[in-house]
Amino acid sequence: FEITFSPFLSGRCKAEWRPNNSPKLMDLLDDTVPGIGTYEDFNTIDWVREKSKDRDRHREIANKSKQSTVALLFSISDAFSGWLLMLLIGLMSGALAGGIDIAAHWMTDLKEGVCLNGFWFNHEHCCWASNETTFQERDKCPQWKSWAELMVGVSEGPGLYVVNYFMYVCWALLFAFLAVILVRAFAPYACGSGIPEIKTILSGFIIRGYLGKWTLIIKTITLVLAVSSGLSLGKEGPLVHVACCCANILCHFFTKYRRNEAKKREVLSAASAVGVSVAFGAPIGGVLFSLEEVSYYFPLKTLWRSFFAALVAAFTLRSINPFGNSRLVLFYVEFHTPWHLLELIPFVLLGIFGGLWGAFFIRANIAWCRLRKNTSLGHYPVLEVVVVTLLTALLAFPIEYTKMSSSELISELFNDCGLLDSSKLCGYTSNSGSTSGSVNATAANGLGARLAGPGLYTAMWQLALALVLKMVFTVVTFGMKVPSGLFIPSMAVGAIAGRLLGVCMEQLAIRHHERDIFRGWCSPGADCITPGLYAMVGAAACLGGVTRMTVSLVVIMFELTGGLEYIVPLMAAAMTSKWVADALGRESIYEAHIRLNGYPFLEAKEEFRHKTLATDVMRPRRGDPPVSVLTESGMTVEEVERLIADTTYSGFPVVISQQSPRLVGFVLRRDLVISLENARRHQEGVVSMSPILFTECDPPMSPSAPPAVKLRSILDLSPFTVTVHTAMEIVVDIFRKLGLRQCLVIQNGRLLGIITKKDILKHMAQMANRDPDSILFN
Amino acid sequence: FEITFSPFLSGRCKAEWRPNNSPKLMDLLDDTVPGIGTYEDFNTIDWVREKSKDRDRHREIANKSKQSTVALLFSISDAFSGWLLMLLIGLMSGALAGGIDIAAHWMTDLKEGVCLNGFWFNHEHCCWASNETTFQERDKCPQWKSWAELMVGVSEGPGLYVVNYFMYVCWALLFAFLAVILVRAFAPYACGSGIPEIKTILSGFIIRGYLGKWTLIIKTITLVLAVSSGLSLGKEGPLVHVACCCANILCHFFTKYRRNEAKKREVLSAASAVGVSVAFGAPIGGVLFSLEEVSYYFPLKTLWRSFFAALVAAFTLRSINPFGNSRLVLFYVEFHTPWHLLELIPFVLLGIFGGLWGAFFIRANIAWCRLRKNTSLGHYPVLEVVVVTLLTALLAFPIEYTKMSSSELISELFNDCGLLDSSKLCGYTSNSGSTSGSVNATAANGLGARLAGPGLYTAMWQLALALVLKMVFTVVTFGMKVPSGLFIPSMAVGAIAGRLLGVCMEQLAIRHHERDIFRGWCSPGADCITPGLYAMVGAAACLGGVTRMTVSLVVIMFELTGGLEYIVPLMAAAMTSKWVADALGRESIYEAHIRLNGYPFLEAKEEFRHKTLATDVMRPRRGDPPVSVLTESGMTVEEVERLIADTTYSGFPVVISQQSPRLVGFVLRRDLVISLENARRHQEGVVSMSPILFTECDPPMSPSAPPAVKLRSILDLSPFTVTVHTAMEIVVDIFRKLGLRQCLVIQNGRLLGIITKKDILKHMAQMANRDPDSILFN
Repeated sequence: FEITFSPFLSGRCKAEWRPNNSPKLMDLLDDTVPGIGTYEDFNTIDWVREKSKDRDRHREIANKSKQSTVALLFSISDAFSGWLLMLLIGLMSGALAGGIDIAAHWMTDLKEGVCLNGFWFNHEHCCWASNETTFQERDKCPQWKSWAELMVGVSEGPGLYVVNYFMYVCWALLFAFLAVILVRAFAPYACGSGIPEIKTILSGFIIRGYLGKWTLIIKTITLVLAVSSGLSLGKEGPLVHVACCCANILCHFFTKYRRNEAKKREVLSAASAVGVSVAFGAPIGGVLFSLEEVSYYFPLKTLWRSFFAALVAAFTLRSINPFGNSRLVLFYVEFHTPWHLLELIPFVLLGIFGGLWGAFFIRANIAWCRLRKNTSLGHYPVLEVVVVTLLTALLAFPIEYTKMSSSELISELFNDCGLLDSSKLCGYTSNSGSTSGSVNATAANGLGARLAGPGLYTAMWQLALALVLKMVFTVVTFGMKVPSGLFIPSMAVGAIAGRLLGVCMEQLAIRHHERDIFRGWCSPGADCITPGLYAMVGAAACLGGVTRMTVSLVVIMFELTGGLEYIVPLMAAAMTSKWVADALGRESIYEAHIRLNGYPFLEAKEEFRHKTLATDVMRPRRGDPPVSVLTESGMTVEEVERLIADTTYSGFPVVISQQSPRLVGFVLRRDLVISLENARRHQEGVVSMSPILFTECDPPMSPSAPPAVKLRSILDLSPFTVTVHTAMEIVVDIFRKLGLRQCLVIQNGRLLGIITKKDILKHMAQMANRDPDSILFN
Repeated sequence: FEITFSPFLSGRCKAEWRPNNSPKLMDLLDDTVPGIGTYEDFNTIDWVREKSKDRDRHREIANKSKQSTVALLFSISDAFSGWLLMLLIGLMSGALAGGIDIAAHWMTDLKEGVCLNGFWFNHEHCCWASNETTFQERDKCPQWKSWAELMVGVSEGPGLYVVNYFMYVCWALLFAFLAVILVRAFAPYACGSGIPEIKTILSGFIIRGYLGKWTLIIKTITLVLAVSSGLSLGKEGPLVHVACCCANILCHFFTKYRRNEAKKREVLSAASAVGVSVAFGAPIGGVLFSLEEVSYYFPLKTLWRSFFAALVAAFTLRSINPFGNSRLVLFYVEFHTPWHLLELIPFVLLGIFGGLWGAFFIRANIAWCRLRKNTSLGHYPVLEVVVVTLLTALLAFPIEYTKMSSSELISELFNDCGLLDSSKLCGYTSNSGSTSGSVNATAANGLGARLAGPGLYTAMWQLALALVLKMVFTVVTFGMKVPSGLFIPSMAVGAIAGRLLGVCMEQLAIRHHERDIFRGWCSPGADCITPGLYAMVGAAACLGGVTRMTVSLVVIMFELTGGLEYIVPLMAAAMTSKWVADALGRESIYEAHIRLNGYPFLEAKEEFRHKTLATDVMRPRRGDPPVSVLTESGMTVEEVERLIADTTYSGFPVVISQQSPRLVGFVLRRDLVISLENARRHQEGVVSMSPILFTECDPPMSPSAPPAVKLRSILDLSPFTVTVHTAMEIVVDIFRKLGLRQCLVIQNGRLLGIITKKDILKHMAQMANRDPDSILFN
């Protein structure tokens, strides 16, 4: 039986698949017939093929580089082009982020008033340059006029308030209206945070124009407008989208990346790291975010390059210095008091709150989005944005903490009260003017300095109101047709809750400092509880609950504070939050939106845990007609064209014959269509009756027969196969790790069916519905 | 042809592979025949099977949890056992690392003298407790007696020096001798750094006892001895091994991890993060080190758990406080001067030096290790250690910078000179007593404070000498039969080179400060160059050159300084160093040692770039007899036993028949041997002529025939297959990503050959030899 076993002795012509002939095959794919090897919109790429293409290209360059100096130089420049691309992405994203920051600052202040020295100054810069500003009232200076002062001329009384209120609402409406109109007219893809779509694209899906130049321009402009309008949204998620657009556009200048979808996705992974890096000034956190949350295929080479790009972007942003404090980070905090072990209890409570908020937010937001999708609400996106903005502006203005921008609010909540702090949050009764009779002498001796005064009580009530408003508005805002991130709103919710709890704990400790529990912890005369730390822990918990980030979340927060000291509280809260949120619903907000939009995304994190086999998933199902196949010889052009017309499959297996369905290879529908059209047009004598041959050598044919169309070059001779007995968990693993589009199912050498990525997604959804709580345990 | 296509209508009995029957199969594998599903020593695990086993176990627990409360509690405790395990690993490793630090400190000082207040005090603690210590001479106090003072009673003169010299060498020899004797007698696996072996183990290889309790105990003790002996080695690499030993031992207490090799490796990945975390006090860097350098299979769940474990370990270490300064990090540095853009030139030079040193070190060390392996040198490990220690101690004592321990040296080199610093490295001429006539008045005006004095010149010469010694001794030391890490020696080499360059730059800038190039940079009166920063950059560059770490290296260094400010210099040096080193040789020191020792390690980072096909690699080769197969029916016990005895393959494909070699499944040799022995012993009537059946249902047999041995339960019905045309780059990818042991090669449904992991490694080595420079371009 030696003949059966060895391919070398068989009668076939065997030249075609020898190594030395293979480059020819590639050339053919790349050059001869244009279009072969590309993808249509809303299709999934074949990672294996793309990576093979890149390796072929690389090999060719390496071979040529030995022949001439020019080729050698080209090969070196090719090797470094990746780094150059990263540098450019870093510079461009950093510059754009800086511009967005500055513009958003200015336009946010424009809602309140204008600078007489020059309308392009924002409030802070206007008064900073003024000599008449006192330290006590840093934010008041004659150069800065509120709209009421400018228009009506009043500087006090209810008139001022009403006019300012009116102008605030008008500007907010104008900004929001402009934003939604621009998005609608020029770039519908610019809405939302973009992270669900980028996740899907990175997993291998193609959405043309999602990362194009129009999206970039419109998203940049409308992001500024949306943020300035005072809606409950942030710019952090959209910045990731902006960075990815930059990366995609810059890819066009490098052949290596333009032509290869897999390589392009490596660059996009790095770009999403850049986005977070500029959003928070946290390069390491950005890289980990990309690795943990966004990326699908993340080779280690990408890790290093991402880090490089993230750093370049962070430093570009810093040299633009949009916050005016030469700090890299958005919220710089420095705490002085160490935390006590017992404080872990409130931190875990904040974690539970964060998890509950995350789970609630995801459910409510998805329900709202579904309502928008299924009812007539979805037909009026502009009206929706205008109404939500109107309500937000109307309710936000009266309360100090909703009137200010979310990032300012978070900044203030994170801040520890200093001696000279004028914020109402630091409205403690001073030592000397202690009014409360219930405080005994010991308390007044140092600790009394932290006793809540009327200012703080007002602030607490306002904060509690702000919390409720933020929660409601965040739910309805995310998913509207304007660019909207939810990092900042989530963090704001958590920071408010954290600050509230922190102040409560502080007052509790001060009022009961003589109790055993507080005695060792709060020594008199020293601050023992930092409410700002609670705000920070709360922010981390809520962000974790919504996005289910873990390591990247803690690292981003670590980069904000810059000290290992506070990692333990953050980690405790992040862990609790993730557990609580996971127990109430497995999906993060991004995954929920991916599922809502029906993108073909195969989650890499979630393990498939059901005991089904390949045979349960493959097509055709039991009782269906057999799978549509081509035979390697014996079919005519007409038969194949009819098969193409009758079916919608994206590819066809090629077998030896219908009677002996032993697998030869797999051919893609697109390649087949293009090749047949090409043959009809350019190959002489091809008629409907011409035979189609996938064989290595021509079978004997009568001289009168029409010339054969030879298509072995478009045949994938090494399709992935599994047996009918293969457990689906293994099949899912193969699809994820190798990035397959389809896989053929064989039994004892016979082709029985096919499994596509969509079949798997459908099956997973079915299984999850059938057995919803099996996912609880991980 | 419907019958051929559909498995559902065929005449076979089809119950066996339906989902509902599968648990039975698992039970059978787990329980009935002991030993099935385990591995022999020095074998590779099957990741796919291990992961399936875990999922089955998980599914079973999840199903049971619905039936009773006890089972529900069990399932919850099972879900949290991973976290508990991480906590325990963190605590144990942190405690051990603290103990090692304290012991090594004490024993290093023991070489010089002893504390009269209590012999268990090290030099610093002894003098710290003393009241008679002045600030000027912090390290001199009457309680601390050098050996000469104690033994001969002299406190001055050459006698003191000679006796101290003698005692220093004696103690060093004693420590080194003890270390090597202990390693040889009790735990041969305790030698070296352990990282190459851990990498191999994590990739799926089994080395029994490598992570056992004896290795742990002996490695801990001998690590202290080796470090104290003053040999040119560090404790950082071995700490990773120690942490992995802890993890492996603790795994025994958790069924989930004890029984599953894949799950155990997840824990070991986390443990290697813990090792680096305690070595440098850098939890994030540790996790990235594990991800980048050590781990093979690193799911995101592991990332989070690793981070948790690394943090716990770091905090345990901090609460032990071995360095006595309540700092987490080994070398805490704080620089005050920002760096200038032009300084990137010397930083890149340091990167080039680091790369050259890395490439040189790897070649020299491998050549030396090969010499040891191939000549009679390898027969005298104890003698080798003693001789190297003797030489090291003899040459190290006269030079201040080699006499001190490497970590002290690095600490001193990293340090920026303060005003009151008494170190010779800060031996600048003071402002007032300027002796040099060549310095003009402007220089003395502030900048003169940094002009090199005679103390600094002496220090420079000593450092240059120390550099040469360190380089030579590090090459011969790494690979000896004592625990030895090379993080610290590599960093020491780089730090010396960096400090030398830094001081040169500093003097250059001071002497030529009026030149254009320095004018904008060095304003008079301010320090403009920080030699300590150069030392740090040099250390990073050299460590990078040797280990080829990238992100983790920069992050570890970032965690040491705690500021983003200095990341750019570090990154520039690390990048240059990696490029230079990669251009001279692709392998890191760990990979070089893995190849030297011939471990079956399939590098996940390196892409396979050759254009060969599966048919070029598979066995049997062209002209060889066909592959040894079993048939699904028709073979007898005797035939199978003869096949097992005649071959050494670790598994056999099962085909339908020799004439029609269509693949049915794959059976492992070990499972087959165990099952046959079991059948011979326990199944009645089994004789040599008994048929062996892998079929689903019994073929008709005469009643007089001996009973059949049914082995379908040990048959893997879903072996991985590729076609002969599959490019090897794809095959290698599949092996890496799915962690396969072997893969069958088919053509048109017929089994043609088999590719094992060893075949791939052999092929890769062949291709690398044939075409050595194609690996240059990446």
